[in-house]
This record gives sequence, C-alpha cells and structure tokens, in this order.
Amino acid sequence: MKAAVVLLSGGVDSATTLAIARNEGFHCHAITFDYGQRHRFELESARMVAESMGVERHVTIPFDLRAIGGSALTDDIPVPRDQDPDSMGDQIPVTYVPARNTIFLSFALGWAEVLGAFDLYIGANAIDYSGYPDCRPEYIAAYENMANLATRAGVTGQDRFNIHAPLIEMSKADILRTGTRLGVDYALTTSCYDTAEDGAACGRCDACILRRKGFAEAGIPDPTRYVS
Amino acid sequence: MKAAVVLLSGGVDSATTLAIARNEGFHCHAITFDYGQRHRFELESARMVAESMGVERHVTIPFDLRAIGGSALTDDIPVPRDQDPDSMGDQIPVTYVPARNTIFLSFALGWAEVLGAFDLYIGANAIDYSGYPDCRPEYIAAYENMANLATRAGVTGQDRFNIHAPLIEMSKADILRTGTRLGVDYALTTSCYDTAEDGAACGRCDACILRRKGFAEAGIPDPTRYVS
Repeated sequence: MKAAVVLLSGGVDSATTLAIARNEGFHCHAITFDYGQRHRFELESARMVAESMGVERHVTIPFDLRAIGGSALTDDIPVPRDQDPDSMGDQIPVTYVPARNTIFLSFALGWAEVLGAFDLYIGANAIDYSGYPDCRPEYIAAYENMANLATRAGVTGQDRFNIHAPLIEMSKADILRTGTRLGVDYALTTSCYDTAEDGAACGRCDACILRRKGFAEAGIPDPTRYVS
Repeated sequence: MKAAVVLLSGGVDSATTLAIARNEGFHCHAITFDYGQRHRFELESARMVAESMGVERHVTIPFDLRAIGGSALTDDIPVPRDQDPDSMGDQIPVTYVPARNTIFLSFALGWAEVLGAFDLYIGANAIDYSGYPDCRPEYIAAYENMANLATRAGVTGQDRFNIHAPLIEMSKADILRTGTRLGVDYALTTSCYDTAEDGAACGRCDACILRRKGFAEAGIPDPTRYVS
C-alpha cells in the first residue's frame, strides 16, 4: 500500500480530499499548519478528522505567518461579511494569504520525500474558492513540475511526485455529496473564519456562506451550529 | 528604489548574495529560518550580517523541520567528516534537507507579495554545493514559473517575480572574491555544520572543507577559528 501526504485544514474540502485519497488506496499521512490563523478552531477539527479517518500519522507544523501579515486571516484586517456568493470570485479576497498553499505544499513535499511517498493531496478548489491564485489548475501543474526538480526524485529520475487536487473543478455541493458517500463526518469539520468563543460559526463570512450554500444545494443537512 | 527579499542563512553564500542584491540597487529585506538546524550558531551570524549590511528589515521565521526529519542537519544522523571535496557532488549528501530551499523560497515569496517586492535572492550554488537537487538552475527556473502562477501577480499579469540566484555557477573562490570586493565582512559569517560550544568551526564537515578550500583558492585570509 503506497503512502500519500494529505494537507488537512479541518474544513470541508480537506476532509473530503482525505477521504478520496484513502478511497484511492493510499496510506494517508495528514499534515496541518498552525500559522497564526485567526480561525484557530480548525486545528482541533483537523485533529478530530484525522482521527476519525484513521490516518497513519498526523503532524501539525507551527509557524507564524503574522510575521509577514498581509491577509485578513493573519493580520489586523476585518473578515468581510454578507458578501454575495455569486460575485466572490471576481477579485482576490482579503482572506487570501500570500503564498499559503505554496508554503503548505512545500512542507508536505519535504515530509513526503522523507517518507518515500510520491503522492500529495490538496483540497484546492477553483470554483467555490475562486479568486485565490493558488487554487488554479495551472498553479498545481507548475508546482508539480517544480517539485520534481526540487527533490532527490528530480536527480535520480526514478519516481515522480504527483500533486493531486481532486476537488479542483468540483462545486461545493459535489464535494459534499462525494464526501458523504465516502463516509466523511462533516460535523467534525469547521469552515468559519470568525468563530465565536463557544465554537459557533458566524454564518456571515465567505467560508460560512459557501458552506451553507453547498449543503443547501447538495440537499444534505448542515450539522454546523451558526450564530446567525 | 525597489525592494528585494534576500534569503539569509548567515553563511558565506547568502552574505555575498545580500551584498550583490544591495549593489544591484535593491532595498533589501532579509529573511532567516530557525528550523531546528543543529548548527544554530548561524542564526546569530545572520543577525550580525543583516545589521552590518544595513538591511531594511530582518525577520527570522521559526518552525521545526525535526517533525519531519530525514537530514543530518535536523535528525539524529551524524554529519560526515573529512570527505574529499572533489567527490562531494557525486551523490546527494546526508546533510541535504528535503525541500528546504522550496520551503524557504515559499516564505520569502509570501513576504515579497505583502511588501510589493518582485525580486527574490537566494545564494544557491550548483558548483561547490553540488548534489543538492534544489541548488540547480533548472530548479530555480521552475520555482520562478510556479511563483508567477501562485500569486496575485499571476492573476493580474502586471508584474513578474524574478528569482535571482547570482552565485549559481560560481566557485566558492569566485564568491569570496566578489563578496570581498563588495565589502562583506566574512568574519561575521559561519559555515560549520558542527560548531563547538565555544563557537569554533569543526574544520572537518563538508561546509568547513569547502569554506577553507575557497579561501585558499581565492588567496584571501580565512577569518574563521577552527578546532582542527
């Protein structure tokens, strides 16, 4: 059984991606990042999702992107509320974290190289989460090309890294249907950028709006507790 | 005056790279990584080099690559000693840290995007430091391509990131001659992977051997204090 490294944030997309990787026959190693995100609640979700999916190992790498700033998720910039989901992708949102997926994939690549794994899974999504440059198929392809030159594999030519982004062209509703079929317990996941202290989701940030809309479109009950 | 982000480890190569970036007219922002390396002495060297070069800002990002392991620099693997410098490049050394330059460049990319800088400098070197996959020109080119798809620049198409690796084809002696001409104080730098507690360099690891050989070939006195 081959090993894969799966980026796991604790949200809907990465939990579904983990279920897909497992279903494709991989021994899954999950990697989570504690990067100073304001929505720290997701770290506990990631732990619970990893446990519920029976991953081989789950590591959380701490670093602090607040040293760099530049995003509503890591800096003193308000999280937008009550935006129209149909126009969210028209521009790059202030919740975009510069180079975040690139940093995440790079740690995953290093770990994969140590494990002797050549398959990395990322829950990037170009449809619902549009507007993030690092969620586009051409970005994933360029990363894969770079990864194969960055590593021992690039020198020996014996193996090739594959960056899997199975959700990239899926709608949120499709993602939820797929995950439900594969046994994901979405009650363990969290999406909100601005969770209340008691753990309730705000219901008004982009992530909550897309989550709600996705569950509604999929016709699946949303197990999330929302403030409003 | 345009801003650049320069990777600064505290060694000969990155100090010289910083001097080159400054000489090319950039306002330099230096970024250093505290990644659990056994040669922690270099962090203080990086601080001193940054100060002596008058950088705009110097940030040190802590994270822990020991969670991943897989290298003599971050794991319980002995650092090789007394190797023949002419055969060091024949295979990937155990001091190779999986995906290290990729992780470093990714943080630098994120910071550059926040700063509005489009020039990144890395002291990668394909000659003396050969055997590291992520020190080859084809790797740098692939990273640059990926970076321009990963970021806002890739969406708007207004600017392009340039990954400068000015040392990539230089010998250690050429690097030392260039830095000396540009005013680098190499007494502030450190290269050793296995520094003694009093700060003396071991003189026997690959980094010491290449440093000594470089100074000898350049005909420049080596300010380093060696144990042997």
